[in-house]
Amino acid sequence: MAPKSDIEIARAAQKRPIMEIGDKLGIPPEQLIPFGHDKAKVTADFIASLEGRPDGKLILVTAINPTPAGEGKTTTTVGLGDGLNRIGKRAITCIREASLGPNFGLKGGAAGGGYAQVVPMEDMNLHFTGDFHAISAAHNLLAAMVDNHVYWGNALGIDVRRIVWRRVVDMNDRALRTITAGLGGVANGYPREAGFDITVASEVMAILCLARDIEDLQKRLGDMIVAYRRDRSPITCRDLKADGAMAVLLKDAILPNLVQTLENNPAFVHGGPFANIAHGCNSVIATRAALKMADFVVTEAGFGADLGAEKFFDIKCRKAGLRPDAAVLVATVRALKMNGGVAKADLAAENVQAVLRGCANLKRHIDNVRRFNVPVVVAINHFMGDTEAEIEAVEAYVAAEGSEAIVCRHWAEGSAGIEALSHRVAELATSGTADFSPLYCDELPLWQKIETIAHRIYHAGEVTASSAVRDQLAQWEAAGYGNLPICIAKTQYSFSADPTLRGAPTGHVLPVREVRLSAGAGFVVAICGDIMTMPGLPITPAAERIRLDAKGHVEGLF
Amino acid sequence: MAPKSDIEIARAAQKRPIMEIGDKLGIPPEQLIPFGHDKAKVTADFIASLEGRPDGKLILVTAINPTPAGEGKTTTTVGLGDGLNRIGKRAITCIREASLGPNFGLKGGAAGGGYAQVVPMEDMNLHFTGDFHAISAAHNLLAAMVDNHVYWGNALGIDVRRIVWRRVVDMNDRALRTITAGLGGVANGYPREAGFDITVASEVMAILCLARDIEDLQKRLGDMIVAYRRDRSPITCRDLKADGAMAVLLKDAILPNLVQTLENNPAFVHGGPFANIAHGCNSVIATRAALKMADFVVTEAGFGADLGAEKFFDIKCRKAGLRPDAAVLVATVRALKMNGGVAKADLAAENVQAVLRGCANLKRHIDNVRRFNVPVVVAINHFMGDTEAEIEAVEAYVAAEGSEAIVCRHWAEGSAGIEALSHRVAELATSGTADFSPLYCDELPLWQKIETIAHRIYHAGEVTASSAVRDQLAQWEAAGYGNLPICIAKTQYSFSADPTLRGAPTGHVLPVREVRLSAGAGFVVAICGDIMTMPGLPITPAAERIRLDAKGHVEGLF
Repeated sequence: MAPKSDIEIARAAQKRPIMEIGDKLGIPPEQLIPFGHDKAKVTADFIASLEGRPDGKLILVTAINPTPAGEGKTTTTVGLGDGLNRIGKRAITCIREASLGPNFGLKGGAAGGGYAQVVPMEDMNLHFTGDFHAISAAHNLLAAMVDNHVYWGNALGIDVRRIVWRRVVDMNDRALRTITAGLGGVANGYPREAGFDITVASEVMAILCLARDIEDLQKRLGDMIVAYRRDRSPITCRDLKADGAMAVLLKDAILPNLVQTLENNPAFVHGGPFANIAHGCNSVIATRAALKMADFVVTEAGFGADLGAEKFFDIKCRKAGLRPDAAVLVATVRALKMNGGVAKADLAAENVQAVLRGCANLKRHIDNVRRFNVPVVVAINHFMGDTEAEIEAVEAYVAAEGSEAIVCRHWAEGSAGIEALSHRVAELATSGTADFSPLYCDELPLWQKIETIAHRIYHAGEVTASSAVRDQLAQWEAAGYGNLPICIAKTQYSFSADPTLRGAPTGHVLPVREVRLSAGAGFVVAICGDIMTMPGLPITPAAERIRLDAKGHVEGLF
Repeated sequence: MAPKSDIEIARAAQKRPIMEIGDKLGIPPEQLIPFGHDKAKVTADFIASLEGRPDGKLILVTAINPTPAGEGKTTTTVGLGDGLNRIGKRAITCIREASLGPNFGLKGGAAGGGYAQVVPMEDMNLHFTGDFHAISAAHNLLAAMVDNHVYWGNALGIDVRRIVWRRVVDMNDRALRTITAGLGGVANGYPREAGFDITVASEVMAILCLARDIEDLQKRLGDMIVAYRRDRSPITCRDLKADGAMAVLLKDAILPNLVQTLENNPAFVHGGPFANIAHGCNSVIATRAALKMADFVVTEAGFGADLGAEKFFDIKCRKAGLRPDAAVLVATVRALKMNGGVAKADLAAENVQAVLRGCANLKRHIDNVRRFNVPVVVAINHFMGDTEAEIEAVEAYVAAEGSEAIVCRHWAEGSAGIEALSHRVAELATSGTADFSPLYCDELPLWQKIETIAHRIYHAGEVTASSAVRDQLAQWEAAGYGNLPICIAKTQYSFSADPTLRGAPTGHVLPVREVRLSAGAGFVVAICGDIMTMPGLPITPAAERIRLDAKGHVEGLF
């Protein structure tokens, strides 16, 4: 019999009412805002009431560079949360929400897999509790107010050539990347170049993920720069008086979403995906609330550790004052093989040498995580075709690097398959060995911060940028933004900006194409190589196969 | 002491848990999908289980042409629902959802007023249960798939000059009315003229409001025309294989939303506002479900009876096979005065002559509703400054027209203030005098349908259009769409296309500027005069005043 698909397993889940899951965490029913019977938001009042409680231990799950072979980072995050609960620890899993648009491009699914999933999976890959729609609405309200301000006389003196606030839509729509807006005559405003990003690339999304509470959210929204005057002085969201209305639109979106794993353990699903173009972490509000309610909080960072973990440490932890206690680096034998040069079609054949070559990628990620003074253990997410020799090769390699690799079978077995890792992680996280420190200090100039990430994390030989980019950074430093951290936007497939360069390349060039200031979120985005902030649909979009079956179930989304 | 504001009254509401409201209607808790503790969707299974039950009586609430003085159509709809419950009838109120974007332009509020409101008012004017966000997402997925199809080779032969599927956003954003998309080079596709409408103008919104169930919804989505080939043959949503994915995105949005009035009576809030650019009625699914669950269903149509009631009868009732039993025409003394030529600043002074002049507008609406063979009663929605002489003048005028005008004080007194109207409406609706028939038959040519509405309802002297518009109608007739009804888009302020022409103008010209075929919704839109399908923000948008107060309450939205 063929193994069950993720969606078959998810549909067979014996879900408990969400009020019961909340009760496990001590949340009274009136402090939960239900969305259906299996999802709920936690009220701001309840979260505020947690202040003063001690924090649990914070565990980051990250991974080697992703390949088409699959790594299972979210799956392992969910599995580890269940595993810790299984061995008697009070643990909460904190993962990110799925972006709607991309699910209609390629096969979706951002809720784990196999017997390590969060449910309800269908909802999580569709509108969920509406957080991203709220972000789109808030973002686009501000955009409309910018153009409306110019239309009615432009009292603030906006230079229409220097409007930097784009619009967003949660859809893969390449035709909107660059547009001319305001056409059609006097009644429609001033023609100008404009464009759309995908919603997760919005600074509003980053702010929602980094804000401590609704007041902090509104303050940060107000700080966002939307345009410049001819004299290059910035015009903010607050100048346009849009911050209050945007906060109103986001008042529910900022509340963490409580769901459950297949094993009925609590999970907070809140905040933005896409660590390639955003910082890509579960929200600070959700992570902090979870730390108050559990002894162990397992959270993920997007894509490989070069992007996801670096931003988790240098942006999220730095800014929120979080001190991670342990990290898990997820690898699969198949992905290591691909990093070792094997084509996807040849993955089925045993190939220990390729696995060992691919371990160069793994080693660099281990070294990188250690730079942040956080102890790390490797999770080998077991696939059915893995051979004993291949697994032993990884174990030996990692041991020689002074770390430990533990085989996990949570995909096939649920929490029973991840007990060993759970024990080891609990031990590491409570050992007191972690002494988190970010990669660079706040005072380092912006360009040197980019270089530091490029050299130390990516092992690039050189970082290039036009003089316009460097001048822009210098201007922001002069304007007082020099102390911000950097959020790199680049391909997730390589340490370099070239998605085909697998393994552990060195000496490559990191081309910084564009920089964007997120003054409200509190970072500078450096866009490297060909990465797009608005994806396109493939030649045969998944949408063509997505439909409701006769029972009203969603087909083709997973 | 000043009277309480709508929002103060709404916040003081003694809401019952929504499961309890459902229980009143015989809906078991597991057939309700909660959104918070005060909103819920009714499952498709429960709605399907109602088939075979007899229908209650259907009552339409419509109004004279709106003026800045306010008429209170939704307020009266809610008040009448409460009034019928008060006199011992089982009644459900069915109103429309609010559009998000316009609330940030002018003062919002679409949930009634005074002591005749539906709650939770704040949610209803913000994201509510996410229906409109789902419509935007479904609409824009199709738009992205159209451009994506062209990008990857255009196998269907789309003429990029004849793409008629625009994009939508639920925001007043005039800069997006006309854009050039696909700029920026090969990777972004083909440059072409495009544009955005506000979400409520989407054909997807109309389909959601007219579909009988999810299968019918998907079928209608598939029928939508998105573009034409060089030979003018149409390309549909089904050709692009987008209908299944769009139905998935709309599977929850199509379920009616159950909320409650201030008096804890059930209300279904579902479907699109904006009878000026859309057909503007509560969804067929909600209305039909309510008819199965109650003896009386009170529903509204948007703006004045010239737009709202005509579309309710000729589109919604015709297409859904609904047979309305009675109509209530709402008027206020103040609005009649404005229709009689009084400026807003002078409304406080008694002016019986102006009231009587304004009654010309009222009379025409009475006559128009009678054309559909539905008995009509006038509700005088009482305002504090109304004088006895003014009210008596209206009562006498209406009596002379062979109808009846009843003063209602639901705004100030709740259901106690609307007992007389409730008794009269219950009597009329059960009298069997209604014999509904639409204004024109399906077989009438499209242009003659437009002329029929213009002459008989608006009393226009002439209907004009370019030869391109007339040719287009002829082409659609040749293609088999000649049997569709017409959905007029025009200003709500006048029987004419000129918003300043109050009262009961005759002999005016109705200029048809553009026609659009909604092959899935099943009507032809005739855009008349200057009406816009994408509004703009005013010089001082309401958004500038909207914010959260210290208690987390929304300020400035109402």
